Amino acid sequence: MEIRQYERFEISFTGPSGGNPFCEVELHAEFRLGGRVVRVRGFYDGDGDYRVRFMPDALGTWSFTTTSPTAELDGRSGSFECVPGESHGPVRAIGTHFEYDDGEPYVPVGTTCYAWIHQPEPLRDQTIEALRKSPFTKIRMCLFPKRYAYNENEPESFVFPGSLSQGFDYTSFNPAFFAKLDGELDRLLELGIEADLILFHPYDHWGFKQMDPEVENRYLEYVVARYAAYRNVWWSMANEWDFMREKTAADFHRYFRIVQAEDHAAHLRSVHNGNDFYDHGLPWVTHLSIQRWETQQTSTWLGQYGKPVVIDECGYEGNIQEAWGSISGQELLRRQWTAVTHGGWPGAHGETYYNDREELWWAKGGMLTGESPPRIAFLRSILESAPVNQLSFEKARWDQPQIHSGEEYYLFYLGSSQASWRVWQFPQGQKYVVDVIDTWQMTVERLPGTFAGEARIPLPGREFVAIRATAVAD
Amino acid sequence: MEIRQYERFEISFTGPSGGNPFCEVELHAEFRLGGRVVRVRGFYDGDGDYRVRFMPDALGTWSFTTTSPTAELDGRSGSFECVPGESHGPVRAIGTHFEYDDGEPYVPVGTTCYAWIHQPEPLRDQTIEALRKSPFTKIRMCLFPKRYAYNENEPESFVFPGSLSQGFDYTSFNPAFFAKLDGELDRLLELGIEADLILFHPYDHWGFKQMDPEVENRYLEYVVARYAAYRNVWWSMANEWDFMREKTAADFHRYFRIVQAEDHAAHLRSVHNGNDFYDHGLPWVTHLSIQRWETQQTSTWLGQYGKPVVIDECGYEGNIQEAWGSISGQELLRRQWTAVTHGGWPGAHGETYYNDREELWWAKGGMLTGESPPRIAFLRSILESAPVNQLSFEKARWDQPQIHSGEEYYLFYLGSSQASWRVWQFPQGQKYVVDVIDTWQMTVERLPGTFAGEARIPLPGREFVAIRATAVAD
Repeated sequence: MEIRQYERFEISFTGPSGGNPFCEVELHAEFRLGGRVVRVRGFYDGDGDYRVRFMPDALGTWSFTTTSPTAELDGRSGSFECVPGESHGPVRAIGTHFEYDDGEPYVPVGTTCYAWIHQPEPLRDQTIEALRKSPFTKIRMCLFPKRYAYNENEPESFVFPGSLSQGFDYTSFNPAFFAKLDGELDRLLELGIEADLILFHPYDHWGFKQMDPEVENRYLEYVVARYAAYRNVWWSMANEWDFMREKTAADFHRYFRIVQAEDHAAHLRSVHNGNDFYDHGLPWVTHLSIQRWETQQTSTWLGQYGKPVVIDECGYEGNIQEAWGSISGQELLRRQWTAVTHGGWPGAHGETYYNDREELWWAKGGMLTGESPPRIAFLRSILESAPVNQLSFEKARWDQPQIHSGEEYYLFYLGSSQASWRVWQFPQGQKYVVDVIDTWQMTVERLPGTFAGEARIPLPGREFVAIRATAVAD
Repeated sequence: MEIRQYERFEISFTGPSGGNPFCEVELHAEFRLGGRVVRVRGFYDGDGDYRVRFMPDALGTWSFTTTSPTAELDGRSGSFECVPGESHGPVRAIGTHFEYDDGEPYVPVGTTCYAWIHQPEPLRDQTIEALRKSPFTKIRMCLFPKRYAYNENEPESFVFPGSLSQGFDYTSFNPAFFAKLDGELDRLLELGIEADLILFHPYDHWGFKQMDPEVENRYLEYVVARYAAYRNVWWSMANEWDFMREKTAADFHRYFRIVQAEDHAAHLRSVHNGNDFYDHGLPWVTHLSIQRWETQQTSTWLGQYGKPVVIDECGYEGNIQEAWGSISGQELLRRQWTAVTHGGWPGAHGETYYNDREELWWAKGGMLTGESPPRIAFLRSILESAPVNQLSFEKARWDQPQIHSGEEYYLFYLGSSQASWRVWQFPQGQKYVVDVIDTWQMTVERLPGTFAGEARIPLPGREFVAIRATAVAD
């Protein structure tokens, strides 16, 4: 049997279906390659079906053996051949940027559809089609459904069997829900989109934000066992963790440690704030997932934590009454470009234009109708044409926050400034070509000639312009 | 002799012209009305001419007698009749707002021309003509000239006799300079514009930012003796006080206390920051003079200090290369409206559009060419038609910072929000008319009918809109 590198190996065993297998039956498998041993938890999928999923990250012949207190699931073994594929693997945090496991750069360009998997299938299909045409390489989405303004519909199925009226069985899981989620994560995988899975959140009326620790732990083990082998999964412990008043920082430490211990593929781990930050300095946090409108602070957080900073929320383009859901596309772009040129990553798209169906992209997916997506695609193209993983932040002067790669590449965003020129101090002994980028009009104008030393760069005198300087040979 | 209330009584005496009268001759006058005694310092104006200026704030027969160690200036006396006039008197800080001395509301709508009095007369005339047509009720201006980008010209005259090349005589003052300033303050007075006189600043190449304390004290005494009787004068200890590296907070305490002690008319006193605030809680500070771009913080400062907050600088409308001098008129207006609806006052206009004459309004005056002045006039009209001195700040909800007068009047600014409606909770048992104000288009649209209880206010779905609700009888 052959499995391509970073793809999913999955094996199924038939075991006991009586009693409560979710709680009572334990199954692990040990995967071996040379001297390496990787221990992976299996999960019960209902109807006597036990599964183990594993993502091989290295080429060669992997063997495995199961261990279980249940005799019929113990000591099952086999092997497969991991062969080269076309995938780059899961995304890793390296310094203050991201790479796929094989070293290929990854640029997080994110959108938010919190509850899209809880919508009817036709709407989910529409979401996937919209994503296909979009610039997004990452999506934030919740496992638990969402109850909030413009989110009044009950979902078809839940993580746990049951319903709001009948209550939930917290001692088991709902295979039908997870089968749907399996499929949707595969659709995202096919589009090359990372799924930032939000494990807990406060927008609840079912009781999922205040479960017993025992239930939470079992939930986390189950979800990680089921999805760690999806190479496009990220773990977000919560959305607006500090608004989950029933839980403390110690609870979140526990979530992180379980996820870290259970995840054989070591996917990215973060937690998103409402007002107050979690301590992003803790070792199990791989990167910052930030909600703030003042994205010029990105460089401060970068300095504080030395980890990649993803601005996952800075207000949504839309027209609903709430301040967070009614900024213009121009303002969203300004905040995103500000984040990027302060050393962060643009994870923060979302759309909240009202329609009579109450299908707002930010919650339910559907259609993208805003002005920002094409401009975000343009921003992505600028980043992807940069030496993106050599970029670091510096303040050349107090009003010149920029990212640069050594003396080879500089990117400076003027934001709300409508300056009609800018005097630039180029490093000695090096010539540069200079592009004036209109981030809103999506144009790149190469200025004539080359620039060196102290040079005056003419600018168009309007807002939302960036300057890009690239070193050239004589 | 009759002097109208709040106008200037000035009397001149001939005295010694030998030696150095600026340092060696002291003159005071005591003005009496009934039981009140007001002691006022006189000043030397050159050529043996000694003057005392006094602003009577109460009607009746005032008498005065001079006191001086110099015999010929001692014991001179006289009287005048203070009669009703048309002036409202100097501006006072009352709670968190301003009033003229007679209780008439004063709305500070400020502009900045730091060095306008140091420009040639034709340019000064142009400035006065521009101010005449402008909405401004306050101007920030320096007594010392300014050396800075776009400020390279030497002035005709200085506070002290001398010049950059020949040095300055710090033991005397230059009557020619002060005669010019007298005249310009009178021109502002005629326009009803308050002069926020900046006594020190760091943009120097003459040495004025690092004078000896003895010289500074004499300078402050002289300036206050000369101008306290101008009812339109405010005292600003410094511009960007924290950028005057040679001076400490203790020096600024000294400045404030001298100005406070010497000023018989008790004009407003403040100090303007670069980065760091002076302690605005100190008793001699009458109001806050703030430089910050993030004007949504206004309500925080209001809560901290309980004094009026004037946003005197939040970036200038213009197109020069510096970030502080290249924001759009729209962005300036957004910051001003944000300040106002967080309980502050819009002191922060300035223009920095480049022209070949290097006559940038913010420094030299001249012509107003920006997009913001008519919109600032509109903002002023909104404030002047409000119960302006009953307004206080409140946060009705986290994204609804508003100013209001009890349950009679509400003003809420949506800023960058392009919300297409807003649900408002009106106080029980009261009906309201609602205006939708476009702060940029300068339109006021009265919505049909009246509103009460929980009501949905339709909005145009574009940025820079404000909502005004006014209680009406049934």
